[in-house]
Amino acid sequence: MPRQLLVIGGDAAGMSAASQARRLLGPDALAITLVERGDTTSYAACGIPYWVAGLVDKRSRLIARRAEVFREKQHIDVRLHHEATAIDTAARTVTVRDLDADAEVTFPYDDLLIATGAQQVPPPVEGLDTPGVSGVQTLGDGQRILDAMASRSPRRAVVVGGGYIGLEMAEAMQLRGLDVTLIDLAPQPMTTLEPELGTQIADAMRTMGIDLRLGTPLTGVEAGADGWVRAVTTPDGTIDADLVVLGTGVRPRSALAEAAGIPVGPSGGIITDDRQATPVDGVWAAGDCAETVHRVSGRPVSFALGTVANKQGRIAGLNLGGAEGRFPGVLGTAVTKVHDLEIARTGLSVREAEAAGLRPVVSRITAGTRAHYYPESSEMTVLLIVEEDTSRLLGGQIVGGPGAGKRIDVLAAALWNGMLVEDLVQMDLAYAPPFSPVWDPVLTAARRAAGSPG
Amino acid sequence: MPRQLLVIGGDAAGMSAASQARRLLGPDALAITLVERGDTTSYAACGIPYWVAGLVDKRSRLIARRAEVFREKQHIDVRLHHEATAIDTAARTVTVRDLDADAEVTFPYDDLLIATGAQQVPPPVEGLDTPGVSGVQTLGDGQRILDAMASRSPRRAVVVGGGYIGLEMAEAMQLRGLDVTLIDLAPQPMTTLEPELGTQIADAMRTMGIDLRLGTPLTGVEAGADGWVRAVTTPDGTIDADLVVLGTGVRPRSALAEAAGIPVGPSGGIITDDRQATPVDGVWAAGDCAETVHRVSGRPVSFALGTVANKQGRIAGLNLGGAEGRFPGVLGTAVTKVHDLEIARTGLSVREAEAAGLRPVVSRITAGTRAHYYPESSEMTVLLIVEEDTSRLLGGQIVGGPGAGKRIDVLAAALWNGMLVEDLVQMDLAYAPPFSPVWDPVLTAARRAAGSPG
Repeated sequence: MPRQLLVIGGDAAGMSAASQARRLLGPDALAITLVERGDTTSYAACGIPYWVAGLVDKRSRLIARRAEVFREKQHIDVRLHHEATAIDTAARTVTVRDLDADAEVTFPYDDLLIATGAQQVPPPVEGLDTPGVSGVQTLGDGQRILDAMASRSPRRAVVVGGGYIGLEMAEAMQLRGLDVTLIDLAPQPMTTLEPELGTQIADAMRTMGIDLRLGTPLTGVEAGADGWVRAVTTPDGTIDADLVVLGTGVRPRSALAEAAGIPVGPSGGIITDDRQATPVDGVWAAGDCAETVHRVSGRPVSFALGTVANKQGRIAGLNLGGAEGRFPGVLGTAVTKVHDLEIARTGLSVREAEAAGLRPVVSRITAGTRAHYYPESSEMTVLLIVEEDTSRLLGGQIVGGPGAGKRIDVLAAALWNGMLVEDLVQMDLAYAPPFSPVWDPVLTAARRAAGSPG
Repeated sequence: MPRQLLVIGGDAAGMSAASQARRLLGPDALAITLVERGDTTSYAACGIPYWVAGLVDKRSRLIARRAEVFREKQHIDVRLHHEATAIDTAARTVTVRDLDADAEVTFPYDDLLIATGAQQVPPPVEGLDTPGVSGVQTLGDGQRILDAMASRSPRRAVVVGGGYIGLEMAEAMQLRGLDVTLIDLAPQPMTTLEPELGTQIADAMRTMGIDLRLGTPLTGVEAGADGWVRAVTTPDGTIDADLVVLGTGVRPRSALAEAAGIPVGPSGGIITDDRQATPVDGVWAAGDCAETVHRVSGRPVSFALGTVANKQGRIAGLNLGGAEGRFPGVLGTAVTKVHDLEIARTGLSVREAEAAGLRPVVSRITAGTRAHYYPESSEMTVLLIVEEDTSRLLGGQIVGGPGAGKRIDVLAAALWNGMLVEDLVQMDLAYAPPFSPVWDPVLTAARRAAGSPG
């Protein structure tokens, strides 16, 4: 009898783990069953805004690999429309509802990987089930928005939330020709960046024609006579809307694990060690539902990021397949864009650094993305957060034109290696006029942060 | 009496050093005189191809700061058209020819910084002084090519040399509407990259319509009846040419120093310590004329790169100004492009690694620059050179479409920190569909190099 690996969740972390384990162990040594409550495996949730925008022509292009391929090529028994409802860690079984048959099935396991992802935290208001109001979590959400655009020719969209998804959906709605209002209860968009950059982003978004309403919570949703959404309400008044997109935050989907006595940490994610094993024998967790360690603060954190989910899935799969893998923690590196404005961050913000008991100082420079004389150079701002006593880099944030965003990776690499800003200044980065000023803006920022006289 | 700093050479290294020293010490403490044989300070030699291409409209845009500004704002006594001809390290004087007055002047110094740059190594043939044949070293060179294009409406250009400058000038000539033949005596363009990438670059250049002749040395230059160049000769025949651009290599311009008994190392560059001090008391060197240490091989090297010149100039200036600065060596990171093809490298090639007594292995992947479903994703190849015994990264090379080239900086950061490829795999880089696949190509390359099963 092969060992039985059961995986809950068929997206990045779950499928990466299953595939990775399969590459190490054949079906004779390891049977793999995977239950997924949706109708798709391995889809790129991050791609939904671009599909809605019309930049991706077909829903199927967002699916990295279909369930049949996992079944046929990798002998992974993928069960779609199967929702896990309870875990019994003593009996080593999972109760699963077959949504098509409306029946309950019990799956035994030797090893269980929980990869249930994240769930949206909706605004605490009534009426979110009004037709025309949608999240952006699943392909179904995207399809609903596209269907509404096709059938109702909406003119006005309200996007709720000014984080990554909110900004991307604001862009998507504008590309579809809608008038866009974005509301956020925070005083700035992109609250993971410092306020001074938030202001810069807000100004740029307004220049793009996005009606940005900050410090503005959603208080309600109004439906028209046909039942379709007609407006949203806020303390500052009513905003007409033919479509409402919820781009509010997410949290780890860990309730199933918690109900089974599998420990959940302060971030809300399932606690694991660096092999992705939970404290409960035979139970593993990976991806958005799991907690991990921030490499700079040493604190437990959860990030709903595809990069982290893929990497943790791979590590879980290595260990489940009998190899060795250790997940070394995260920096929270992320990038997005609204039209031509690129926004990226890595490491700790000032607030996060202070919460970790560190003493951060901030420095900031503005420079060109290319040599000043080269066509289409655009401005970019690099903000560095540095530990006052040691000059160790704690975090970095970038806002700027095309070519700015991915430069965050150099700061991520510097953070990863615990570099001091005065060492970063010297780093031998690539230069040619179409690519960079001779001092890359990242190095100029490090010079400033190092207090160099010039 | 202030101390007297004399600087030979008014480009990146010399001007950086002078400015940096001035920021630390005022004119009462330090008098700075700088002699430059040309007519310009601080010009962007790297920008010349783009000026010739018509992408930069005015010569003056390539000048970062004019001599008058250094004189007025920084009290640096800049003497243009002044060529240093001899150094007396015992008397602490430099003999300088005033090219305008055609007279000799002797300058005393307490500290001397040699920043004489690099000089082209021309092909060993007659006729290189034929009108219509030009290097791309100085603004004067660029002006000559532009003048020829304006006055003679050339149709055919021959570019000699398939390195950075050769490729950039081939692009420039094509953008100006000329038919371009590029000849190189090597069997591939970009010999600083591995042959497999050289082939990829050669194929792409031919697709761009560049008539690429490899393994083809220049044997001569033929002039027409009016004295202007008419053709070049090679062992494989004559190639018609209305313009000939020499993009052959450069070497440190160190003869002046060597003649004065200042030691020159195996790379041909002036030997310095990590403060940019030569072994001769009171004599310093920085930039293309100086030798430095390769951080991966530990070997002495010289690179003619603006980034290195600026950084070394800054370090020399810090020390000359009474502060502390140590230059930590180079990786030889560089990037260029021909039209949409970006080419970058950092660290050691296979040959360089073997010459340093290391045992390199090569791995290579091809991936998209963006999510596969996102518009305008293009292919990129990442080649990693890894030490067999330790799995330490030794070098990286990238060839690919827009967005590929600057990713070399992540590999440079990994090399800078001596990372192993299995640690690089885990690094937390930024992802969003417009910027990257969920596994950045650099990480995918590291996975392959680490021998990950997937």
